[in-house]
Amino acid sequence: MNLPNDHIVKSYDEEQHRLVAEIVRMGEMSVAQLIAALDVIERRDEKAARRIVANDEAIDMLEQQISHDVMRLALRGPMARDLREILAGLRIPADIERIGDYAANVAKRSIALVAMPPMPQVQGLRALGRLAAQQVQRALVAYRDNDAEAALALRQDDARLDAQYTALFRELLTYMMEDPRNITPCTHLLFMAKNLERIGDHATNIAENVWFLVHGDAPLPPREKRDETSTVDHA
Amino acid sequence: MNLPNDHIVKSYDEEQHRLVAEIVRMGEMSVAQLIAALDVIERRDEKAARRIVANDEAIDMLEQQISHDVMRLALRGPMARDLREILAGLRIPADIERIGDYAANVAKRSIALVAMPPMPQVQGLRALGRLAAQQVQRALVAYRDNDAEAALALRQDDARLDAQYTALFRELLTYMMEDPRNITPCTHLLFMAKNLERIGDHATNIAENVWFLVHGDAPLPPREKRDETSTVDHA
Repeated sequence: MNLPNDHIVKSYDEEQHRLVAEIVRMGEMSVAQLIAALDVIERRDEKAARRIVANDEAIDMLEQQISHDVMRLALRGPMARDLREILAGLRIPADIERIGDYAANVAKRSIALVAMPPMPQVQGLRALGRLAAQQVQRALVAYRDNDAEAALALRQDDARLDAQYTALFRELLTYMMEDPRNITPCTHLLFMAKNLERIGDHATNIAENVWFLVHGDAPLPPREKRDETSTVDHA
Repeated sequence: MNLPNDHIVKSYDEEQHRLVAEIVRMGEMSVAQLIAALDVIERRDEKAARRIVANDEAIDMLEQQISHDVMRLALRGPMARDLREILAGLRIPADIERIGDYAANVAKRSIALVAMPPMPQVQGLRALGRLAAQQVQRALVAYRDNDAEAALALRQDDARLDAQYTALFRELLTYMMEDPRNITPCTHLLFMAKNLERIGDHATNIAENVWFLVHGDAPLPPREKRDETSTVDHA
């Protein structure tokens, strides 16, 4: 790819558009990974799970590529032009990259579950995962459309995901207490649930970056508290 | 702070040095938070734990500040000058910010533990935490000194932290199986251990950014595998 291509250099705006589209595409890859991960838990399909883990590499490489392109564009643009666009263009892919990691970890843990008896909480876990996938989707749309209101709304809804996570967390603890043989599989489900809750947090981060893109450093409205499992002192 | 200060604008190099020092300072704050968090687990001191959680805000704000300053500097510098320095200057603070979050979460969970009977595995957890703190310290020194060899060495040593995490993880599972009353406190310790293992991963990320600073996109040597608890299928 060493062809001279200066004569086909895109305008700053065109390149900025292309990058936003690339970031959204990257985000969709991470959502697809998450949905595939939720699917293999149900199907107990080790080969598919390994494929998801391997696919995470593509997202990681895309993040590297995008951050380089964003920086190159930044260095080309007029000084104060869009610090915000540039920062968002670096931060959002970093969040997406983490979402991809969590999705891959869910798939990886599902491999360990294949050897264990089916757990009734898997349904709750999948519901949590679908909600997390929805939150990421909404964040990507808000980013694409530069829609601060939509970003704010999904940020508020993170509380729902947290509540669902907390309920599942308590259910898993109870199930572990009923029978020690449940402890190992439940521990995997606990970490998988935690991964999904973290994906929600990254969707919230993306939303906050969209707010920042639109409103600059104007303070965000307060919102409901996060999950409370860190302070659970009973089962 | 609206004084005209153009006449005291620092040179690009001076500003770059100041930013590296700021990033190292930010890293040291996160290490201090981690050490304080390990300390409150031992002392079972709820007030101190809450203070650590509140302090995390300062690290978050510093990351915002640093990323703005790095970008402003980037937009000032000559074109291709140092894409690498700039990217590292944005990525390393993001890793440090996450380390601060994990330290705060360890402190938060220690609050829940105060109400529970003391657990023998707390010593192992603290040892794991000290190793994680060491890894972060080494990463900061490698960054400050631009030392790719030191970065590589600490990256290799992440396998030790992973091994220690895996051992503690198994120990906690066994302890849960012995008595259902151990399940709730052990779950907190499991998540705290996971946080510490993740801190190690972020130290590794910092190390990889130091490698990238020195060697550009030259591939990193292969290294030992990460923790294996995602695939534990027995206790």
